[in-house]
Amino acid sequence: MTDITMIRAAAARLAGHARRTPLLSSPFLDEIAGRRVFVKPECLQHTGSFKYRGARAAVSALDEGTRARGVIAFSSGNHAQGVALAARQFGVPSVIIMPADAPRMKIDNTRALGAEVVLYDRATEDRDAIGAALSSERGLTLIKPYDEPEVIAGQGSVGLEIAEDAAAMGITRADVLVCCGGGGLTSGIALALEAEGPGLRARPCEPEEFDDVTRSLASGQVMRNARTSGSLCDAIVTPQPGNITFPILRRLCGPGLVVSEDEALHAVALAFARLKLVAEPGGAVALAAALFRRDEIEGDAVFVTISGGNVDADVFQSALTRFA
Amino acid sequence: MTDITMIRAAAARLAGHARRTPLLSSPFLDEIAGRRVFVKPECLQHTGSFKYRGARAAVSALDEGTRARGVIAFSSGNHAQGVALAARQFGVPSVIIMPADAPRMKIDNTRALGAEVVLYDRATEDRDAIGAALSSERGLTLIKPYDEPEVIAGQGSVGLEIAEDAAAMGITRADVLVCCGGGGLTSGIALALEAEGPGLRARPCEPEEFDDVTRSLASGQVMRNARTSGSLCDAIVTPQPGNITFPILRRLCGPGLVVSEDEALHAVALAFARLKLVAEPGGAVALAAALFRRDEIEGDAVFVTISGGNVDADVFQSALTRFA
Repeated sequence: MTDITMIRAAAARLAGHARRTPLLSSPFLDEIAGRRVFVKPECLQHTGSFKYRGARAAVSALDEGTRARGVIAFSSGNHAQGVALAARQFGVPSVIIMPADAPRMKIDNTRALGAEVVLYDRATEDRDAIGAALSSERGLTLIKPYDEPEVIAGQGSVGLEIAEDAAAMGITRADVLVCCGGGGLTSGIALALEAEGPGLRARPCEPEEFDDVTRSLASGQVMRNARTSGSLCDAIVTPQPGNITFPILRRLCGPGLVVSEDEALHAVALAFARLKLVAEPGGAVALAAALFRRDEIEGDAVFVTISGGNVDADVFQSALTRFA
Repeated sequence: MTDITMIRAAAARLAGHARRTPLLSSPFLDEIAGRRVFVKPECLQHTGSFKYRGARAAVSALDEGTRARGVIAFSSGNHAQGVALAARQFGVPSVIIMPADAPRMKIDNTRALGAEVVLYDRATEDRDAIGAALSSERGLTLIKPYDEPEVIAGQGSVGLEIAEDAAAMGITRADVLVCCGGGGLTSGIALALEAEGPGLRARPCEPEEFDDVTRSLASGQVMRNARTSGSLCDAIVTPQPGNITFPILRRLCGPGLVVSEDEALHAVALAFARLKLVAEPGGAVALAAALFRRDEIEGDAVFVTISGGNVDADVFQSALTRFA
């Protein structure tokens, strides 16, 4: 299981590869939020999301012989690109199983990063069977998107950086708002903060109707979403909390925060205007929570992750049209 | 006159105040450019542009008594916000003289940063007379946007950071492309590189029809632009090179690079898609030069400044509609 030793080891392997993202801020956002807001822009990470950290941490943790045979992942989005880039950097093959109806740009990007993309028909084909056949045939190692200890350890490097920067600013108590899907980033950050910033508290942030983690934390047991598609915040939508991540979240996190899609889009527009950052809607839910759920947050400073920026131009434009 | 000692002193005064911006990159941009492209995103600087560096350097260089009486600047854009924020941080008054037809958002932002904004009518009023009257009445110190040694020194801190990061990557020879208006940023960077990265060469980048610096460098004497308004790249349009900056540019810079407005907008769209950054058109001309003038650039790596990100939503959306 992931612990602080694994996180520190992952961070050491990521040094010089993953970007050490800065903390950004704006007096205009502070005013809306009613407290100081420090934004961790993982949209500036390689491949445009934090997923590269976990992917590279997992690929780099494999023994050389295993890694040389290659890796495989199921993903229609950010995890795909993270795994593809990490594999390419090690000079090993990667296979990404993507639904044939995934956005063309994400398929193209994943291919351009050197992955072999295998498309399947969601209606008629079984992606797990396709993946299993390819894996056994070629000896590929599956890199899961969140329920994988080394992936969680890699995402935890975000928490180490937040803890270090908070300490440098003299901030010892604050909520750390994290965009949450399966919980890999949130659980990794929570573990890092437990060790390195014990007065900092990770809190998962989710969009309405896809708030499985928030409801699961409230009830104490794993709850599912009624649906898993149809959200503009698709990057952070999963059926339910992970089997490995949920116990970590339950032990360490504060209550979840839930925002509407419109609030996420509003946060996208404010990140454009005030931070000069491109955030995807799912990557902006934590910022939305900081701005629009101020009464649910404690302390005079809050940390916010922007988890990714892989948004199509038309979605981004609609956010600006409505809220900029 | 600005020299490396002044630049180092300015950088020391900026430490802990100006953001130490990272270098960003994307394999997709490298492919278009035909070489490695390292982007210095000063759009992420406080107030959304590098101008904060020079403004704070100049305000912090004043003796306490002078500073306490306040500062004044003429600006319709980025310099205004930089001076306003720097003055507020020192708790001293700032007056910004802005044309009444400046974009409402820039006026509002400058006021929100604590400045007293004095509007004048471009057609009927003399801004210099208004500024001179206010200055003598209140004892305000004028902070010029580029033809001011301490401002150039502050902008030079960008060059120190580029030199340091280039050395850390083992890059000893490369062009450094700089978005160039009056030449404050370009001359500051050029002076810093002369001392700290002598194999790195600053090159001014400008939009077509507003390429006064490029033409001046080619002819060896100061040339003016035929007009000074009507460009989407308004942030970097000035009548002619500065009196202080031009001799520095002439002594140290390589030839200028000129791109079209459409190329600048294309670069805005690519910064959105590949870097997750919001660049203003004027702030994207150096990136455009790296991407679309590859034959005019030397070496297997190039450094690029994105000088600012203060772009209206409608201009940004039009860039995405046309080029994303």
